[in-house]
Amino acid sequence: MSRNLRLEISYDGTSFHGWQIQPHLDTIQGQLKRVVERIVQAPMQVHGSGRTDAGAHALAQVCSFKSESLIPLPNFRKAINSLLPPAIRVNSIEEAPENFHARFDAQSKHYRYRIMTSRDCSPFDHRFVHHVPRPLDFVKLSAAAGFFLGEHDFSTFCDSQSEVEFKVRTITNSFFVFDTSRHLMEYNVCANGFLHHMVRNIVGTLLEVGRGKIACEDLPVILRSRNRSNAGPTAPAKGLFLVSVRY
Amino acid sequence: MSRNLRLEISYDGTSFHGWQIQPHLDTIQGQLKRVVERIVQAPMQVHGSGRTDAGAHALAQVCSFKSESLIPLPNFRKAINSLLPPAIRVNSIEEAPENFHARFDAQSKHYRYRIMTSRDCSPFDHRFVHHVPRPLDFVKLSAAAGFFLGEHDFSTFCDSQSEVEFKVRTITNSFFVFDTSRHLMEYNVCANGFLHHMVRNIVGTLLEVGRGKIACEDLPVILRSRNRSNAGPTAPAKGLFLVSVRY
Repeated sequence: MSRNLRLEISYDGTSFHGWQIQPHLDTIQGQLKRVVERIVQAPMQVHGSGRTDAGAHALAQVCSFKSESLIPLPNFRKAINSLLPPAIRVNSIEEAPENFHARFDAQSKHYRYRIMTSRDCSPFDHRFVHHVPRPLDFVKLSAAAGFFLGEHDFSTFCDSQSEVEFKVRTITNSFFVFDTSRHLMEYNVCANGFLHHMVRNIVGTLLEVGRGKIACEDLPVILRSRNRSNAGPTAPAKGLFLVSVRY
Repeated sequence: MSRNLRLEISYDGTSFHGWQIQPHLDTIQGQLKRVVERIVQAPMQVHGSGRTDAGAHALAQVCSFKSESLIPLPNFRKAINSLLPPAIRVNSIEEAPENFHARFDAQSKHYRYRIMTSRDCSPFDHRFVHHVPRPLDFVKLSAAAGFFLGEHDFSTFCDSQSEVEFKVRTITNSFFVFDTSRHLMEYNVCANGFLHHMVRNIVGTLLEVGRGKIACEDLPVILRSRNRSNAGPTAPAKGLFLVSVRY
């Protein structure tokens, strides 16, 4: 009798080569697989809700794996955490329905991108923000965020190397939260799915709007162009957090 | 005409071998010396308000150095920050009186020690807290903190390898701040000076009180014994922050 286990995990992605397992590289999925296999003494596959980029973080990534192990779940969680590096933590582990799959069953995801506009970036923040020490127009940023809402072909904001063919996604939330006392801007975006580098390319474009290089009104044209070269640069991974996955 | 410059700096000490310069080891003082010498193209000495341990952090360490350089101070600060690793930041740089010395003129220091009591330690906190996932008695901790106030010979709380002879110091503040929603306890302590490992040894002892291994009432006896072996263990450096130095 094998159980299908669903885990919620957090990670500081700074020193990992992203979520996805890769030979000879330290990845989150690779660490989980290594640790769980060591505990259950059997090979297994960990399925994540999706990849996250090298250097990007997660507050609550979801993954699942099947296991014959009968270890009580609180002990299993504790054992996994005791063997994982402290930059990865399992927050919860629970039994899921037999057919639950972390990737295929994900309905929507929430990402947050953190931008710090203070003159200097604090040593305690620098791993977790994109530092942009120049004036950014709050009003323009907020207005621009709204242009991404809805169902669109997001080819303009997809990495040009991507092999995905169907690039239509629906963004259901797209807004900024400003914490002026901390010089912190957090862009939040929810969608039924994201293309490769999509959040980072949207943010790179929003920053061009915030500094006056791209006009808000041009965003619909840029979006419809389905041409990556019309958008802004890819914002660095360190500001990006996978906040939650909805099933 | 040489200027005497006073700097306030922050650092995440996780990957450094402490403040003090040491051959072949990466230290905060060593990084500052390297960077400033590269900018001014002349050898110089950086004086800190005092050492901090390997792995300990600073919100506002103070240091000073003399320089013939005429670079305007805002540019000097910017140049230093552009060459320092992001884990060290110069917050301010200003001209000090000719005879100002960061160490000899320090009147008192404020340290903070952060303890996280949550079941798991978040990947985003683990570098900056001591994780103690067990019940600690708030009332006992607060009461115990008060016993350290005043002028005492702190031999009990000084590293036994220390070569300092005069071990009398005056603690002017010693209290806990509890943030129960975050499972965070912050111990704050101010004194006219600190012995080697003094804060970490006090915290290690306070934690023994908090978990019921040492009684509050025994603290005066332990303090008067001037015997390191009567105190608790040395708490790890990662929870320790130099908050400020008063001149």
